[in-house]
Amino acid sequence: MSAARPGGPGETLAAWRAQVERGLADAVAAPAEASGAAAELLDAMRYALLGGGKRLRPLLTLAACRACGGTDEAALPAALAIEMIHAYSLVHDDLPAMDDDDLRRGRPTTHKVYGEAMAILAGDALQTRAFEVLARGPLPGATIAQQVAALAAAAGSAGMAGGQALDLAAAGRPADAAAVARIDRMKTGALLTACFEVGALAAGAPEPLRVRLVRCGILVGEAFQIQDDILDLTASTEQLGKTAGKDLAQGKATWPALVGLEAARQRTAALRDEALAELAALGTAAEPLLALVRAAVDRSS
Amino acid sequence: MSAARPGGPGETLAAWRAQVERGLADAVAAPAEASGAAAELLDAMRYALLGGGKRLRPLLTLAACRACGGTDEAALPAALAIEMIHAYSLVHDDLPAMDDDDLRRGRPTTHKVYGEAMAILAGDALQTRAFEVLARGPLPGATIAQQVAALAAAAGSAGMAGGQALDLAAAGRPADAAAVARIDRMKTGALLTACFEVGALAAGAPEPLRVRLVRCGILVGEAFQIQDDILDLTASTEQLGKTAGKDLAQGKATWPALVGLEAARQRTAALRDEALAELAALGTAAEPLLALVRAAVDRSS
Repeated sequence: MSAARPGGPGETLAAWRAQVERGLADAVAAPAEASGAAAELLDAMRYALLGGGKRLRPLLTLAACRACGGTDEAALPAALAIEMIHAYSLVHDDLPAMDDDDLRRGRPTTHKVYGEAMAILAGDALQTRAFEVLARGPLPGATIAQQVAALAAAAGSAGMAGGQALDLAAAGRPADAAAVARIDRMKTGALLTACFEVGALAAGAPEPLRVRLVRCGILVGEAFQIQDDILDLTASTEQLGKTAGKDLAQGKATWPALVGLEAARQRTAALRDEALAELAALGTAAEPLLALVRAAVDRSS
Repeated sequence: MSAARPGGPGETLAAWRAQVERGLADAVAAPAEASGAAAELLDAMRYALLGGGKRLRPLLTLAACRACGGTDEAALPAALAIEMIHAYSLVHDDLPAMDDDDLRRGRPTTHKVYGEAMAILAGDALQTRAFEVLARGPLPGATIAQQVAALAAAAGSAGMAGGQALDLAAAGRPADAAAVARIDRMKTGALLTACFEVGALAAGAPEPLRVRLVRCGILVGEAFQIQDDILDLTASTEQLGKTAGKDLAQGKATWPALVGLEAARQRTAALRDEALAELAALGTAAEPLLALVRAAVDRSS
């Protein structure tokens, strides 16, 4: 991430990150009447949602809205909702029946701490809460309805959940470049692209600007996933905070496995530069978004 | 259910049921581009959603809207969304880590047919699709936002998911009447009450009318759950289409276990009559709703 030069994008991102953490904590705060297992469910939701993480998706959402001339207040509910969808998907993906992972963000996964039943319910309730937070936001109802539809399309069977199904089925089987690209686009790309789309919607961006942001989001989504796969091969478990080398061990279809590390690195750089070129015309309002795109693609953990 | 006297509530309910089945099938139809595991995910979603069921919740939603003077077109997306939320919760509740059930609606449960990973994803994607269907409906955006918030509140940690957490924790432990009532209200009552609320919202019902419908929904929700527990004790697995006697076997807290069958039956009748009295003032537009409330509480399967 950029250094926090006063007034620069780094300072903006740091302020947004604090705002997102507060908003997420509020979204899963336990009401006074919660007790027993209902309170434990909220504990599990908090554990899954508030356990660190780069908060890339909410920051992208806030930055996309800003790039389109919108306010932070307009974008915040959608930013929180997307992070809650992301968090729910991690809880469920880590379950024994799915990717069976014990470690996430450097800590035991949710089902390791709360048990499988509670982890399934916590994921379910995080998804539900995402849509509730979005629906209770301050934007005009028509905009909220568009955001709910966009987020749901990105998270559902034609997006994230469908991509996870493809990814599980692909483990241990030979895959071609088109199949790998499709999994990446659905499993990770769709939700990252949704950040750009719902951010633009929050700003009330005119159609051509929204389309430009979505195009940029598609590029960033693909670059991000390839970088993820590169890091799975090259970084340590300690650096990642999750088990490294899993894709290879499970025989998963990834770009670096298919074309080699160097070609994969060249592809992320090309995708990143194309995305940055899309945003260059938007001026200073797009600076935090530019900084985020660079950080997301060039990250080392 | 009432006989299909021409123009009577029975005929209305039969027409609604056909409309709901068509709408649900459309909501999980596979697009041409779905293939491989993404197509299998949609298969699992269809298996879970289209496998019969009384469709009580969508019918209640349509009937609540009609009782408030609204049209079927206005209520249909919310009706479909609630059934999808209900279907997702059944898929996840039946998982080995949760209630571990092999039979649902007289057929093997979703995870028995598609495996656990696909069942988790199918439940996830059904929930997502519920909110998408609701958001893409024809109502004014402000109404949609209210419906999304109401449905999410009913389905989340303070409602259905929280109730399931309480229910799992209560298995095999002694419970008092207040604890049992709380579980019933959250696990089953909240979503049934939401049918009345989102139906009234779809009709654009004025606040006092909406409050009356919600009050009625709370009564019906409690009566329905007690009847469910009575049937678990008294009906056969064949009649129910799901494993009978499970609550007793798992030591689950239920009203009949607590106060005895006869007192439980008296309580459902009292709750039903109170709900019917709430609706009596609404005239002929409420007739299908009256018929549904009677059928829901007095059912034998």
